[in-house]
Amino acid sequence: MKRLIVDMDDVLADATGQFINFYEKEFGVLVSRESLNGKEEMERFPGHHKTVYEFTFQKDFFRTMEVKPQAQRVLAELNKKYELFIVSSAMEFPNSLPEKLEWLGEHFKFLHWKQFVFCGSKAVVYGDYMIDDLPHNLERFNGEKLIFTAPHNLQHNHFKRVNDWLEVEKLLL
Amino acid sequence: MKRLIVDMDDVLADATGQFINFYEKEFGVLVSRESLNGKEEMERFPGHHKTVYEFTFQKDFFRTMEVKPQAQRVLAELNKKYELFIVSSAMEFPNSLPEKLEWLGEHFKFLHWKQFVFCGSKAVVYGDYMIDDLPHNLERFNGEKLIFTAPHNLQHNHFKRVNDWLEVEKLLL
Repeated sequence: MKRLIVDMDDVLADATGQFINFYEKEFGVLVSRESLNGKEEMERFPGHHKTVYEFTFQKDFFRTMEVKPQAQRVLAELNKKYELFIVSSAMEFPNSLPEKLEWLGEHFKFLHWKQFVFCGSKAVVYGDYMIDDLPHNLERFNGEKLIFTAPHNLQHNHFKRVNDWLEVEKLLL
Repeated sequence: MKRLIVDMDDVLADATGQFINFYEKEFGVLVSRESLNGKEEMERFPGHHKTVYEFTFQKDFFRTMEVKPQAQRVLAELNKKYELFIVSSAMEFPNSLPEKLEWLGEHFKFLHWKQFVFCGSKAVVYGDYMIDDLPHNLERFNGEKLIFTAPHNLQHNHFKRVNDWLEVEKLLL
């Protein structure tokens, strides 16, 4: 059984949408997803970079993210065919640890806690496939690297790209 | 630089001592360490197995463990010579996640959060050396396996054994 490593933020969970929500609540400005295209993760919102980073330390930031379209259905199928691990960079944000665990428990009930990994660096995990939105996570991975499209990675063209969960389904199922 | 994977409970932290403390507080009986020798992890306390397991869900169980003798000094040296990761099975106990992170921050200030991994199964990590007290964690590891002596693993003789941090120092430094 091949091992598949799947990221959370901006892969299973709509982290970009959550930044947009928190930004609107804080500054009263609704930023469009399109305006974020091609900008690196922490430089994409108009001004206020520090505040936007601080959203990630606020209660419920990770707990209340929306699930990405089709992620549940496709992941349930992948879970039958692959040795699946959800690997998330969470250590930087201590409050994210219990929130991410609860979020997975709510939205991905078919997964077992043995399949979850919260880390600082993903350099320590290995497998056959990794799906991630961040180039630095993919770079050190030993297996096949799949970049999951997010506004902040459109400028990176050195990984095989999947634009959504329907494309993951076509490629891996 | 070779990669070294180090466990927390009963390797860096005195988990056995914490079980003894909580057991004494709950039942008024001080169990000796020697009486636990050779018994599997969850069958070692007289009766009350369910309650002993439940200690791991109580507040501060993971936060207030003692550090194992010499662990801080030796790990600080290992941290200079190896690519070091602390990998702990924490997902089963949701409250342990923030507590373990705080505990590492308090007792191992020279480590960076990028070096921490909280997982369910350790099958997903790889490296050159793993130091762990549990045979099932060592079994699937790709590199050299070192079993760190604890009362519940004395009956296992199929791994190279280190009895304490001074022996780790001699072997790896």
